[in-house]
Amino acid sequence: MEKRNISVCFSSELFHKYEEKDSIIVIVDVLRATSVINTAFHFGIKEIIPVLTLEEALQYKGRKGYIIAGERNAKPIKEFDYGNSPFQYMDEKIKDKTLVLTTTNGTRAIHLASGYNVIIASFINIDIVKNYLENTNKDVVIFCAGWKGYFNLEDSIYAGRLAERLLKSNQFSSICDSLLASISLSDSAGNDLFSFLNNSSHRNRLKHLNMEQDTRFCLNPTFKSDVIPIFSNNKLIRLDI
Amino acid sequence: MEKRNISVCFSSELFHKYEEKDSIIVIVDVLRATSVINTAFHFGIKEIIPVLTLEEALQYKGRKGYIIAGERNAKPIKEFDYGNSPFQYMDEKIKDKTLVLTTTNGTRAIHLASGYNVIIASFINIDIVKNYLENTNKDVVIFCAGWKGYFNLEDSIYAGRLAERLLKSNQFSSICDSLLASISLSDSAGNDLFSFLNNSSHRNRLKHLNMEQDTRFCLNPTFKSDVIPIFSNNKLIRLDI
Repeated sequence: MEKRNISVCFSSELFHKYEEKDSIIVIVDVLRATSVINTAFHFGIKEIIPVLTLEEALQYKGRKGYIIAGERNAKPIKEFDYGNSPFQYMDEKIKDKTLVLTTTNGTRAIHLASGYNVIIASFINIDIVKNYLENTNKDVVIFCAGWKGYFNLEDSIYAGRLAERLLKSNQFSSICDSLLASISLSDSAGNDLFSFLNNSSHRNRLKHLNMEQDTRFCLNPTFKSDVIPIFSNNKLIRLDI
Repeated sequence: MEKRNISVCFSSELFHKYEEKDSIIVIVDVLRATSVINTAFHFGIKEIIPVLTLEEALQYKGRKGYIIAGERNAKPIKEFDYGNSPFQYMDEKIKDKTLVLTTTNGTRAIHLASGYNVIIASFINIDIVKNYLENTNKDVVIFCAGWKGYFNLEDSIYAGRLAERLLKSNQFSSICDSLLASISLSDSAGNDLFSFLNNSSHRNRLKHLNMEQDTRFCLNPTFKSDVIPIFSNNKLIRLDI
């Protein structure tokens, strides 16, 4: 059987080079958008509408059954119900609600890839994502959301973790240097991602905002989720598997 | 004293995010354009005109004192005098001549950065480049030419090697995840770059074209050069130091 291709895209500004209609685009924004999305689905959110601007999000403000949430430059927005901390979503109050979310990088990456087969990945659902990708018959692009178009460490290390596990299934091959680099970075990081990322730009951004607890959780979550969010009709919904 | 900033740009498609008029842009295309340029200056070439297209290069064909050289997709061009192998330039015949060079990635990176303070770096002149950067008073952007806009391993490992040495001088600081990743990759690669890059895309491209000898030389050159080529008035010339 011909092996399927995996590649890793390091930046939203490079995504146009990886666009393949038939591939599955795995969107990764570990700190924190895709961790938040996976947490919200794990705790029963019905659907998530990712929007690009604060203004779009505010149009939903006050509507029954909607939660308006997000951040800019990692900081919460005053008029919004929630910020971008996964801990805010670990609550049965979110069950069956619609979350309207806007973040600096993650929701932008989702919009860039919106015409494709998009799934949302973080450490929370890495096991089910790996199983799902093994069982589809499609090429895979791991799309690291990064920071405002710049490469970031945590997303590429996640890409390396996932890619390494997929390559072990013997179904995939790659000629992508970004993937080789991701795997090398993941190996160098070892088990203590929190320490490895001590000097990284986004960990420091969150450190200055007293969000160390968020960082610890996103890198080493206390639960696993079996939900894979997919993007369909401008919304993230649960994939039926 | 305030520390100067170093950053690493992983792709020609990301360079617009690193453009700083006052920074020194260190262009790296280890396999093979910047290694060829450094070899040619070491063996006495007077100047190098980097051009973007084969047609532009051919306009110089047959002119006395000019050598037309380059590659496309790593392969030599039939009508050209030389290809992109550093071994072709280790010859006193090139002394005082003008080289017109067009390559898939390296000359493109030079043109993208042409309005800035550009210097050309490879393993051949890494020592003098490091000394020069320490003795200027400017921020530094290490610009990895990559492959057609994609990240590549060999240029980022070079960036890590150079950045690590510059950081040791205690004059520089960085908040750039690409730089942290480059240093980690450089550390993982260890001393045997040739083996580490065994699965990398460009080493394989050159392997298939029987250019293993070029790869070995560019990664581990048999001589060092004290010339730093700079870009001035559309030409690469020797920096007077």
